[in-house]
Amino acid sequence: MNENWVEIKNTALKWIEEAGEMLKDSLHNSLSVNTKSNPNDLVTEMDYKIERYLNDQILHTFPDHNVLGEEEAGADIQSTEGVLWIIDPIDGTTNFVHQKFNFAISVAVVKDGVGQIGIILNVMQDEWFTAIAGEGAYLNGQKLASVTETDLPEAVIGLNGRWLAREKRSGDQSLHTMVRKSRSVRSYGSAAIELAYVACGRLDSYISFRLSPWDYAAGLVMLDEVGIITTDFQKRKPSFLEKSKILAARPGLHDQLLHYVHNHEGFDY
Amino acid sequence: MNENWVEIKNTALKWIEEAGEMLKDSLHNSLSVNTKSNPNDLVTEMDYKIERYLNDQILHTFPDHNVLGEEEAGADIQSTEGVLWIIDPIDGTTNFVHQKFNFAISVAVVKDGVGQIGIILNVMQDEWFTAIAGEGAYLNGQKLASVTETDLPEAVIGLNGRWLAREKRSGDQSLHTMVRKSRSVRSYGSAAIELAYVACGRLDSYISFRLSPWDYAAGLVMLDEVGIITTDFQKRKPSFLEKSKILAARPGLHDQLLHYVHNHEGFDY
Repeated sequence: MNENWVEIKNTALKWIEEAGEMLKDSLHNSLSVNTKSNPNDLVTEMDYKIERYLNDQILHTFPDHNVLGEEEAGADIQSTEGVLWIIDPIDGTTNFVHQKFNFAISVAVVKDGVGQIGIILNVMQDEWFTAIAGEGAYLNGQKLASVTETDLPEAVIGLNGRWLAREKRSGDQSLHTMVRKSRSVRSYGSAAIELAYVACGRLDSYISFRLSPWDYAAGLVMLDEVGIITTDFQKRKPSFLEKSKILAARPGLHDQLLHYVHNHEGFDY
Repeated sequence: MNENWVEIKNTALKWIEEAGEMLKDSLHNSLSVNTKSNPNDLVTEMDYKIERYLNDQILHTFPDHNVLGEEEAGADIQSTEGVLWIIDPIDGTTNFVHQKFNFAISVAVVKDGVGQIGIILNVMQDEWFTAIAGEGAYLNGQKLASVTETDLPEAVIGLNGRWLAREKRSGDQSLHTMVRKSRSVRSYGSAAIELAYVACGRLDSYISFRLSPWDYAAGLVMLDEVGIITTDFQKRKPSFLEKSKILAARPGLHDQLLHYVHNHEGFDY
């Protein structure tokens, strides 16, 4: 079957817009917050509500598609055969409950293991990052330029301070040395938003030591479109089904950053 | 003389709005970038242009006021006697040239050493943070709530990764330990914006090891209004004339963070 990706993307945009409105409305009410594995991993009733809403829309409209979500959907999925939607109902849950700001809905559509659509909505900023494979990436309808090479001393890197605080390594291959040699670091608390920022040039790189497919699947599609190199710390393509470390960076810079992160394979807290 | 602070604030808002438009317009043109002391300290023609514009408006309208600015104005000012405007034409210069995003105009008015007005405009987001001493602080016209006490494990802290990467200390009083015990850290690359985020609750604290009065003067007025405690690392009131370390935090949290930062007096790179 030949899918019409433009039509599927436009359908997805409508659902995501609706989901974004539900999230905005919910912030006017008080939030009932539970903790998942630890106090830093907040999850709210809205995560479940948004995921179920998107899941129901997708399966109603495309009954032969599959859905993999952060909370519940597709926990038994073992393969990327066919059309698979990978969704994060709220990327940046801590931001959602704590900042009411800088959280995203992230939706990717993958066919037979190849990313076809990536959509990231920064809900409160009304920033839409969208991409269809081969058709380019867009921010609020404006096409994003392809990236050029860059070097570490010129690079602004998205990297959460938690990794710097937890690193036990020191010396030439440490994250600390990498940061000292960079122009600067930023951290916004949402992997999806930070990958979108790499796509539009606000960041030159984003590095994370522990992400799940729903955190980066939409970003991967988008970053491919502008020429950003996205791999794990061994320069392998990240999986759409399993957790991965993520190094997304402009050409040239990607190899320079690998020098600092490739030995951090066992770095997992 | 009894100044009408509301009138002065409204006059300042008009100038800052105009300055913001000049900055937006300039981003459509290419930027001529020079380096100040090092490649990370970018300064552009727009820094000078905006500072001169504000300086001229202020001195034309209020000839008996003084102006202290980041680039040129008031380099000879030795005292806070009388009415002193403290202005940062572009706070977050790296963001301005590199991200075209998350930079601010920061304007404070101080009389006889006491902060009276604080205005921070996040230019591209059109977010206006404003305060008059004793009259409360506002985000886009909406009054900000007074803050309550909080604890480190619940706190999201604004802290640039560069400080974590440069710290040589380890153990119980290190920044690394502090970050590991916090809920999370964020970094946006503009002290003025990060102080404004503390005022509106997006951050519980902001910590910096090296700031100048124009980076934090407007923030100080605003933070006082919502009950945030802002000091240097020795719990002293930051100066309006000299560089200072800055620890701004919600009550309770401020003392907890002092434990980690108060020994970092010599930490200066």
